[in-house]
Amino acid sequence: MTRGLTIALDGMGGDHGPETVIGGADIASVRHPDIRFLIYGDETKIRPFLEKHPRVLSVSEIIHTDVSVSMEDKPSQALRRGRKTSSMWLAIDAVKAGEAQAAVSAGNTGALMAMAKVILRMMPNVERPALAALWPTARGESVMLDLGATVGADGYQLVQFAAMGEAFARVVFNIEQPTVGLLNIGEEEVKGTEGVKLAAQMLREADLPIRFHGFVEGDDIAKGTVDVVVTDGYTGNIALKTAEGMVRLVVDYLRAAMRSSLLSRLGYLLAYGAFRALAKKLDPRASNGAVFLGLNGLVVKSHGGTDAIGFAAAIDVAVDVASADLLSKIVTDLDRLSGLTTSMAGRKQNSDIAESEAVLS
Amino acid sequence: MTRGLTIALDGMGGDHGPETVIGGADIASVRHPDIRFLIYGDETKIRPFLEKHPRVLSVSEIIHTDVSVSMEDKPSQALRRGRKTSSMWLAIDAVKAGEAQAAVSAGNTGALMAMAKVILRMMPNVERPALAALWPTARGESVMLDLGATVGADGYQLVQFAAMGEAFARVVFNIEQPTVGLLNIGEEEVKGTEGVKLAAQMLREADLPIRFHGFVEGDDIAKGTVDVVVTDGYTGNIALKTAEGMVRLVVDYLRAAMRSSLLSRLGYLLAYGAFRALAKKLDPRASNGAVFLGLNGLVVKSHGGTDAIGFAAAIDVAVDVASADLLSKIVTDLDRLSGLTTSMAGRKQNSDIAESEAVLS
Repeated sequence: MTRGLTIALDGMGGDHGPETVIGGADIASVRHPDIRFLIYGDETKIRPFLEKHPRVLSVSEIIHTDVSVSMEDKPSQALRRGRKTSSMWLAIDAVKAGEAQAAVSAGNTGALMAMAKVILRMMPNVERPALAALWPTARGESVMLDLGATVGADGYQLVQFAAMGEAFARVVFNIEQPTVGLLNIGEEEVKGTEGVKLAAQMLREADLPIRFHGFVEGDDIAKGTVDVVVTDGYTGNIALKTAEGMVRLVVDYLRAAMRSSLLSRLGYLLAYGAFRALAKKLDPRASNGAVFLGLNGLVVKSHGGTDAIGFAAAIDVAVDVASADLLSKIVTDLDRLSGLTTSMAGRKQNSDIAESEAVLS
Repeated sequence: MTRGLTIALDGMGGDHGPETVIGGADIASVRHPDIRFLIYGDETKIRPFLEKHPRVLSVSEIIHTDVSVSMEDKPSQALRRGRKTSSMWLAIDAVKAGEAQAAVSAGNTGALMAMAKVILRMMPNVERPALAALWPTARGESVMLDLGATVGADGYQLVQFAAMGEAFARVVFNIEQPTVGLLNIGEEEVKGTEGVKLAAQMLREADLPIRFHGFVEGDDIAKGTVDVVVTDGYTGNIALKTAEGMVRLVVDYLRAAMRSSLLSRLGYLLAYGAFRALAKKLDPRASNGAVFLGLNGLVVKSHGGTDAIGFAAAIDVAVDVASADLLSKIVTDLDRLSGLTTSMAGRKQNSDIAESEAVLS
């Protein structure tokens, strides 16, 4: 499935730039020996790392550019300064031109989304993009979206997210009918914002090919109650970062506890293998790589602060979704939503939750 | 400070009813030997447990009623059926009558808030109540609100939450100038919903006696970046439950890891003391007890599923806030906000985020 795939890499994105990007490509190319890379950025900075990784060198082409988007650039600045010239722009543009099947960048999220929207444009029947990623759960993993591509979403947009997230889950989990839940503050129909109530009504009553579970609450995410958790980008981003913060806190507590006495240190040494396995399970690098859904092309956002292992995971995500032809699956699914606005009684716009800049850092 | 305090207990609330309530009162009365209890509910069910706890018996009075609010009752049903007769109503009414300085219930949150609003009424300068509780952090604990008293909040209401939460933090942490942060999806001023942007503007520009830190993100909660985290009830409830779910998941991972081999089991035994300390630190019962702020009286909500240890923690919270005269501190603080609507340029109502039923279960 991966034969002939080409992935475009923003060689300059992220806190650590080319070193992480090339290191990640090296790890990924062990797992996917058939894929090729187009690497955009400053050749004088990229080539030294590439020379150290002959495996990547042999399947890569560097496309030189002096311009790169900084992690601090606002989307508008990035668009002004990096349009048609920056490594980020060129990587996305390669997807548009059909030279690559997906682009991966560890750069500035807001700039990445702004450029992706300008270059790739929104799919028909999609009003705003959503950032989707995998969330570790007691049952394995779930898809969660929107993790912060935009602020807020009305009922109809949440239904679009549901359709896109469902297609994403089918591809990455290889299951036919993923279950979809709407994140809310109770399971009863009377609770929640107007947006989630309207979305639930549409998902229940409209004849959509989506296996709608109903509302789920915050603790259902980690339980893995559903395969796809749908929420607006404001709530999703806060839930994600709150969860990351709590996991770090518990790990810090655990570390302090294991250092608290001689016996506990000894116990730690004996159980070292188990702690290593636990650390691996909790490693945020393993679930690195969020996909912008709703665009006419695949763009994967890597955490800016990740290392080569994390960047390789983001490349894995790009390879997964590109080889499974996620885009055409989403187009087909969204097509079935196109009659929804007119077929449903009313559509209420959450007018005050304005679309805003992307936020996931 | 606690001398002469009387706490009204809803004897029938929660999944386990009188057993948990009386057991909790017993634990709490060791820590606070001076306080008295008024216990509302079915005397035939309450007295047997009271007989087992002579310490509580000696400082308690049972006020019999046959009527109790069930965990499934909707707020409207509870108000219809339990008005002036239910154990929940009577416990809150004791606060209004001045017979008790605070009420504690493990009952249905929606019903509790509805009754509390009807009986105690909102404070002047408060438009909606907020549920505030302590959140464990790397630096100790922070106050977080609203955890789900209502759905959504506009900018002005968020400023009211900030003032109430700040007063709460002063009392429970015994610090003079707690720092206050607004939960958002980025630290920049351009990001976020209209509500948080407006609230931030007011907190920055208006001459309020609040030490405003600015925006905080989800991971700042567990870091303890600020003493008070302010958000709307929809986001706050989802963040809280998402965090609870993730902590449970990590603990489950840890448990499985420690059972994974003979060596890890041995290590666990050696480090048993450290694991006990960790379990205590992560025990959700320790932070049980959320306070409804914004009402003319103190009502503390205990988790419905907790046990005596958890219920005792909720009584502790009630004793803390009642003995520190939290109410008059909040009234003073809110008074300083009263000129805010007119003094600030504009006030934009989040009209579509309607106040709804309480949600914290």
